[in-house]
Amino acid sequence: MTDTLLPADLVDFLLFDWLELESLLSRPRFADHDRESVSALLGLADRIAREEFLPHYKTADQVEPRLTAEGDVEVLPQAGEALRAYAEAGFMAAPFATGHGGLGLPELVHMAATGSFFAANVTTAGYAMLTVGNARLLVHNASPAQIEAFVPKQLDGSAFGTMCLSEPQAGSSLADVRTRAVAEGQDELGARYRLTGNKMWISGGDQNISATIHHLVLAKIPDADGTLPEGTRGLSLFLVPKHLPGGERNDIAVAGLNHKMGYRGTSNCLLNFGEGTRFRPGGQAGAVGWLVGKPGQGLAIMFHMMNEARLGVGMGAASIAMRAQALSVEYARTRLQGRIDPAGAPVAIAAHADVARMLTRQRAIAEAALSIILFCARLVDDRDTAETPEARARADRLLGLLTPAAKTWTSEWGLEVNSIAIQIHGGYGYTRDFDVEQLYRDQRLNPIHEGTTGIQGLDFVGRKLLKEGGAGLEMLAERVARTLERAKGQGLAGEGQALSAAWDKFLAVREALPMLPRAHWMGVATEVLDGFGTTLAAWMLLDQALVAGSDERRILAQFFIASELPRAHRGFDLALGNPVPLLDFTGDAP
Amino acid sequence: MTDTLLPADLVDFLLFDWLELESLLSRPRFADHDRESVSALLGLADRIAREEFLPHYKTADQVEPRLTAEGDVEVLPQAGEALRAYAEAGFMAAPFATGHGGLGLPELVHMAATGSFFAANVTTAGYAMLTVGNARLLVHNASPAQIEAFVPKQLDGSAFGTMCLSEPQAGSSLADVRTRAVAEGQDELGARYRLTGNKMWISGGDQNISATIHHLVLAKIPDADGTLPEGTRGLSLFLVPKHLPGGERNDIAVAGLNHKMGYRGTSNCLLNFGEGTRFRPGGQAGAVGWLVGKPGQGLAIMFHMMNEARLGVGMGAASIAMRAQALSVEYARTRLQGRIDPAGAPVAIAAHADVARMLTRQRAIAEAALSIILFCARLVDDRDTAETPEARARADRLLGLLTPAAKTWTSEWGLEVNSIAIQIHGGYGYTRDFDVEQLYRDQRLNPIHEGTTGIQGLDFVGRKLLKEGGAGLEMLAERVARTLERAKGQGLAGEGQALSAAWDKFLAVREALPMLPRAHWMGVATEVLDGFGTTLAAWMLLDQALVAGSDERRILAQFFIASELPRAHRGFDLALGNPVPLLDFTGDAP
Repeated sequence: MTDTLLPADLVDFLLFDWLELESLLSRPRFADHDRESVSALLGLADRIAREEFLPHYKTADQVEPRLTAEGDVEVLPQAGEALRAYAEAGFMAAPFATGHGGLGLPELVHMAATGSFFAANVTTAGYAMLTVGNARLLVHNASPAQIEAFVPKQLDGSAFGTMCLSEPQAGSSLADVRTRAVAEGQDELGARYRLTGNKMWISGGDQNISATIHHLVLAKIPDADGTLPEGTRGLSLFLVPKHLPGGERNDIAVAGLNHKMGYRGTSNCLLNFGEGTRFRPGGQAGAVGWLVGKPGQGLAIMFHMMNEARLGVGMGAASIAMRAQALSVEYARTRLQGRIDPAGAPVAIAAHADVARMLTRQRAIAEAALSIILFCARLVDDRDTAETPEARARADRLLGLLTPAAKTWTSEWGLEVNSIAIQIHGGYGYTRDFDVEQLYRDQRLNPIHEGTTGIQGLDFVGRKLLKEGGAGLEMLAERVARTLERAKGQGLAGEGQALSAAWDKFLAVREALPMLPRAHWMGVATEVLDGFGTTLAAWMLLDQALVAGSDERRILAQFFIASELPRAHRGFDLALGNPVPLLDFTGDAP
Repeated sequence: MTDTLLPADLVDFLLFDWLELESLLSRPRFADHDRESVSALLGLADRIAREEFLPHYKTADQVEPRLTAEGDVEVLPQAGEALRAYAEAGFMAAPFATGHGGLGLPELVHMAATGSFFAANVTTAGYAMLTVGNARLLVHNASPAQIEAFVPKQLDGSAFGTMCLSEPQAGSSLADVRTRAVAEGQDELGARYRLTGNKMWISGGDQNISATIHHLVLAKIPDADGTLPEGTRGLSLFLVPKHLPGGERNDIAVAGLNHKMGYRGTSNCLLNFGEGTRFRPGGQAGAVGWLVGKPGQGLAIMFHMMNEARLGVGMGAASIAMRAQALSVEYARTRLQGRIDPAGAPVAIAAHADVARMLTRQRAIAEAALSIILFCARLVDDRDTAETPEARARADRLLGLLTPAAKTWTSEWGLEVNSIAIQIHGGYGYTRDFDVEQLYRDQRLNPIHEGTTGIQGLDFVGRKLLKEGGAGLEMLAERVARTLERAKGQGLAGEGQALSAAWDKFLAVREALPMLPRAHWMGVATEVLDGFGTTLAAWMLLDQALVAGSDERRILAQFFIASELPRAHRGFDLALGNPVPLLDFTGDAP
C-alpha cells in the first residue's frame, strides 16, 4: 500500500526516468530546482492534499453549494480552508515565474503536484486550477497595468478566476455567443466596456471563498449599426471582476446554480451580466469589463486557456482513476469472498482471476492516462523552454496534436476505471458509503466539460489531422520507431509488432482522410480519436517497460497491448471502410 | 415521436413478426389470448405505466425510503398507489395460470408488458417483479397448503415478496451463508423452523406498501452436533413472512437501509432474523419460517427464481436504455446547436454526423438488448408449452445458455446507451434536471445485482460451456445458419460474412476451452461472455432485418455489425491467444 495519493514511486519513475526531468531542470529557466527540491514539493502537495482536501471529499458532495436569499453562492467552509492552505503553501503561484512571485516550476512538476489535489478532491481543487489558468492567460495576453491589477490577487488566493464562454443557446458553438460589450472609453486598465448577457455552466461562477472573482468573458463588440458580428471572429475577451478596483460590486448576478450528478463541490452557475437589477456600478447598467488583447482576438486568446484546461481535465480524469484504482486494490486485498480450493478458507477477492484482471486493467489504463498527461506537460515545458526555436515549435505542434486525446482518452477510459472500481466493490461500491461511487459520478463530467468528446474528435480529425496535416506527428513517429526498435531486443517483440500494426493503421487513416467524404470522417472522428488515444497509451506503456525493465511495467504493457490495443483497430477500420449507414433522425422520427 | 414508453410498432414487430407470437398463441395453454387481446393488454400496461409509474420517477429518487424511529421502512406514497393500480389491473397475477386467478399470459407478453413499467420507473416496478418471481417459485415448489396460504395474497398485491440470499460475509459466495434454521416441528403449513441470521442487500426487504411481506430465505439446518453443513448443498429454502398467519409480527428487524447511487426507490435492507429484540413470535426468539421443498434443495429451487430474476434485470436494463434512447432522440431533434452550412442557421443537433452516430448506436444496442430478453421470454414459453418433451428440453437448454448473456450484455451495454444519452444532452444531461442523469445511475446497478458480471462470466464459460458442454448451442447454431443463408440472397451478404466470422470464432473458443488452463479461462470468462453477447445481438439484428425488410432494420443491422461486432473478436482472441499476464495483488501490493 502506498501512503501517498499518487504512488510516489510511480511519479518518481515517470518524471525522472521516463520523462527525464533532470535534463529539463538543467535548463537555465529551472536553475532554482533540483531533484531534491522537486521531491520535497511533491511531498508537500501530497501532505496538504491528504490533510486539507481529502477529508471533506464526501461532505462536499453531500453539502452542495447553495444560493442564498441575497443571491450569493455559499460553498462548504472546508473547501475555503483547503484552498487557503493551498495558496499559503505557494501552490497557486508555483507555476509562475519568480517575477510574478512564483517558483517558476516546470509544468511537468506542477502537473504532478496538481494530481495529488485532484486525486484527493477534484471539486475543491477545481477552483485553484481555474484560477491558475485564468492568471496564466492574463500573464500572456493582458497589458502590464492589467497584470499588475489582477494577477497578484489571484496568485495569493484573494481572487479566484473563471472562464465564461458558454451561453444557454451556445454550448459547443461559440459562434453563437450573444453577450454584448459596448465601449465606454479608456481608463488606467485599458479599454473599458459595459457587458450584458447570460453565461451558462460557469464553474466557480460565484463562491464565498475568495474576496473577489475575476471572470474572463467572451463577448461580441457590436458593429456601428448595433448588430453583433457573425461567427467566432467577432469574439473578444474581457476581464470582468466581481468587484471593481474601488471595491464596488460589479453588475453580475447569479441567476441559478446547476445541480449535477457529481462534481458537486464546484459551484456551477448561470451568470447574468449587466441586468442592473442588483448592482449598477457607477449608477449604470452593464457589467464593467476591460478588453484583454485586441478586439476579435477573444477566441484565439481563450484557446490557450482552453487547451490548458483540457490538459487539466485530463489530469483530473487520470487522478480520479488513480484514486479509484488504489481503493480497489485495498478493497480487493482485504475483502474475503469465495475460494480457490473448494475445501479451503475464503480468500481475498484479489486472488480470483477475474478480479486480478480487473485490477490489472484498471492500473494499466489509469497509469497510461497519467502518462499521457505528464507527457503533454513535458511538451508544455519544451514549448516554453527548449533550446532552439525549432524544438519549441516542434513541441508546440505535438502538444496541439495530442491535446484532444489527452483530454478525451483519459476521460472516457478513466470512467471505465471508475466503473470497474464499483464492480470490484460489488454492492458496496454502489452505495454512497464508499468513495468509489462518488468518484464515478465525478468522473462522468470529464467527457463533457471543456469540449465534449464529440468536439474533441472533430478537433483531432478535422483540425489537427486534416487542416493542419497532422503537424507534430513526425516527432511522435520518431519516438514510436525508437521504441519499436528497442522492443525487439528486449523480449517484447510481439508487443512491438502489435503496436506497429496499430500505428501503421493510424497512419493509413491519416493518409486516407483527405479523400474521405466530409460526412464520413465527421461520423467516425470520435472513433478515430479513441483509436489514436489507445495506440498512444500502448506506446507509452511499452516505452516505459523498456525504460524500467521491471516485471510490473512489463506486465502492464503486455496486458494493455493484448487486451486494450485491439480496440484501436476498430476505430481505424471504421474510418478506412465503407461509410456505415446511419439512421436519419432529423425528418419524421424513425 | 412515439407516445408509448416502448415503441408500440417495435414491440409489435418483435412479438408478432420476429418471435411469431401468433404461433405461440395457437397452443392450447394460450387459447384465451389472441393478437387483439395481447395488444389491448400491452396498451393497458403502457397507460398505467405512464399514468401511475412515470410521474413519480424523479421524486422516488429524491425522497428515498427511510427507516422510522420504530424501525419500519417508509417509501414514497406514490409508489404504493402505482403498485395498487398495477395489482388491481391484474398485472401481478397476469403470468399465472387461471387456476391461480391469473390470465395465463405467455411469458413473452408478460415480459413485454413489464418493459413499460421498467421504462417508466424501474424502482417502483421492482417491487412487483420480486413479488411475481417469489410467487412463481412458490407455485412450482411449495406445498398445496403453502401455496393456498401465501400465493393469493401476493397475486392480489396484499403481500409482496423478496429473496433473501446474501449476507454481509456472503455476497457472491452463497456457500458461506450462516443463517441458521432450527426445526420446531410440523404445523398446517408444513415443517416449521426458527431462523436466526443477517441478510444483506434485500430489495424490498421492508416497505409500507403491502400489508405484509413474504421473504424467501436461504438458510442452513444445523447438523445433530449443532454445526452448519459446509458448502451450498447444505442450503435450504424457507418462507418467512413478516406477519404470521394469525397476524402476529415475526421476528424480523430492519437493521439498516443502504443508500445507493441510483435505484433509490426500491428499499434495500439489512435484515436481522431472530434477534428477538423487537418481536418474539409465540414468546420465543427466532423468526418463524416454513421449509419450501426439501432440506438441502434450497439453492436448486432458488436458482429457478434467480434465473428468472436475471432475465428481469436484463429487461430492466433494456427498458432503461430504451427510455434513454427515446429521450435522446427527442432532445437531439429539438436542441439547436452549430451549423452544417457555416453561413446558415443553427440546426438540430441530430443533423450532426457524430450525434446521428450516437443516436443510431444507442438504438441498435438498446433494441438488440430488448430483442435478447424477448427471445429468452419466448424460450420460457417453449420450455413450458412446446409440443414435445424434446422441444421443451431444447428450449430449456438454450435458455440456460443464454441467461448469462441476457443479464450481462443488456446491463453492460445498456449502461453505454445511458452514458451516450448524457453525452447527447451535453452539460444538461449531467444535471439532475434531466431524467437521463437518473437513468444512468439506475442502470449502473444492473451489472451488479442478481450475480455480477464476473459471476455471469464464470457461469457462462465454466458451467454452460465447459461443464454442460454448451448444451443448447445446436439450436442456436441452426437459427444462425438459417439467417446466414437468407442474408446471402438479400443484399446483406457482407454482414452475413462478418457475423459468420464472429460466430465461427466463438465456436472455436468453445472447442478450445476444455484444453485451456483453469486460470486462463477464468481470467477471460467475462470477455468471452461479452463477445458472445455481441455476436448474439448481431445475429438478432441481422435476422430482424431479413424478417422486416425495412430500411430502418437494415441500417441497424449494418451499423451494429460494422461498428459493434468487431468487439466480439477481441474477447474471443483473448481466450484463444496466449494467457495475458496479470499483476499479482495478493502478496506485497505491486
